[in-house]
Amino acid sequence: MTVSTTDSPPAESAVRWLTDDEQSAWRAFLAMKTELDAQLGRDMQDSSGLSIADFSVLVPLSEHPEGRLRILELARGLQWEKSRLSHQLTRMEQRGLIERSNCREDRRGSFVVLTADGRRAVEAAAPRHVESVRRYLFDLLTPDQVAVLGDISRTVRDRLAAQCAGREATCAESDAGSC
Amino acid sequence: MTVSTTDSPPAESAVRWLTDDEQSAWRAFLAMKTELDAQLGRDMQDSSGLSIADFSVLVPLSEHPEGRLRILELARGLQWEKSRLSHQLTRMEQRGLIERSNCREDRRGSFVVLTADGRRAVEAAAPRHVESVRRYLFDLLTPDQVAVLGDISRTVRDRLAAQCAGREATCAESDAGSC
Repeated sequence: MTVSTTDSPPAESAVRWLTDDEQSAWRAFLAMKTELDAQLGRDMQDSSGLSIADFSVLVPLSEHPEGRLRILELARGLQWEKSRLSHQLTRMEQRGLIERSNCREDRRGSFVVLTADGRRAVEAAAPRHVESVRRYLFDLLTPDQVAVLGDISRTVRDRLAAQCAGREATCAESDAGSC
Repeated sequence: MTVSTTDSPPAESAVRWLTDDEQSAWRAFLAMKTELDAQLGRDMQDSSGLSIADFSVLVPLSEHPEGRLRILELARGLQWEKSRLSHQLTRMEQRGLIERSNCREDRRGSFVVLTADGRRAVEAAAPRHVESVRRYLFDLLTPDQVAVLGDISRTVRDRLAAQCAGREATCAESDAGSC
């Protein structure tokens, strides 16, 4: 068995197990995010021929004034490992949605550029995607619930960012997606 | 360009774009779930030598009285495609965490069985994982926020289940993970 552990597990009595309410919320949250991702992905594929991964790459490019981003910026924004992004970009380039350009005078890395076809694809997909997001999420929530969802998400992100800042040296040297 | 669309996009004026509050909550939620998954995955790998995918397979097996589940049951519970589960099980079998058993008298499919090593691994990982889930989520939330998170998750799941029931014939014939 190759599973290794770097320290002893906490004593059973010291473990702060989840309460019933927390356990119920956690399991529902885990299942919800898997099921929602799957539904939004099916809807997007059916209506627009794009995957959620395609769309996630196209949106930040389309929001940039010049329709271009450095690969590292894109990887950081998506929180993807470089290898995952690289495979994704290869597939998207083959389909004419983006192009990669190397700038020899600039050592800060190559760019990803949105093509005209890529822009048309994301502009056609966006209205349908927002309709799905409404149907399976926002149409079901009260304004108070939307506010709490936003608050929870921002609170968790702030905590994770603080964790990352605490390992600043590691983070600065690491690839995108690792912190 | 291979992107195809099966229908015309809705007219711009008919699109129910997200409000600023919804958009802010949605983007924060998407980023939070990616970042939280990544952090919990790093913590589990560091402390227990397991991936979240390993753990997700081991937990339902460990909760079954006999430590065994049919592959299809497992795939359905995880909402994974069969091919993804199959690759995952191969890796876990090589590491001695599970075994696969074929029952010739029973045509309802083969079983996945938790090994003694697999049980030890999940039992050692669980206390550390719950500590991470507390640190990055539940310790940050009020009881009201936990209740709202649970409510939102269950509401979305009910809506998605209703969508699936509406396509019942398709669902009944489909592989796990597609609905």
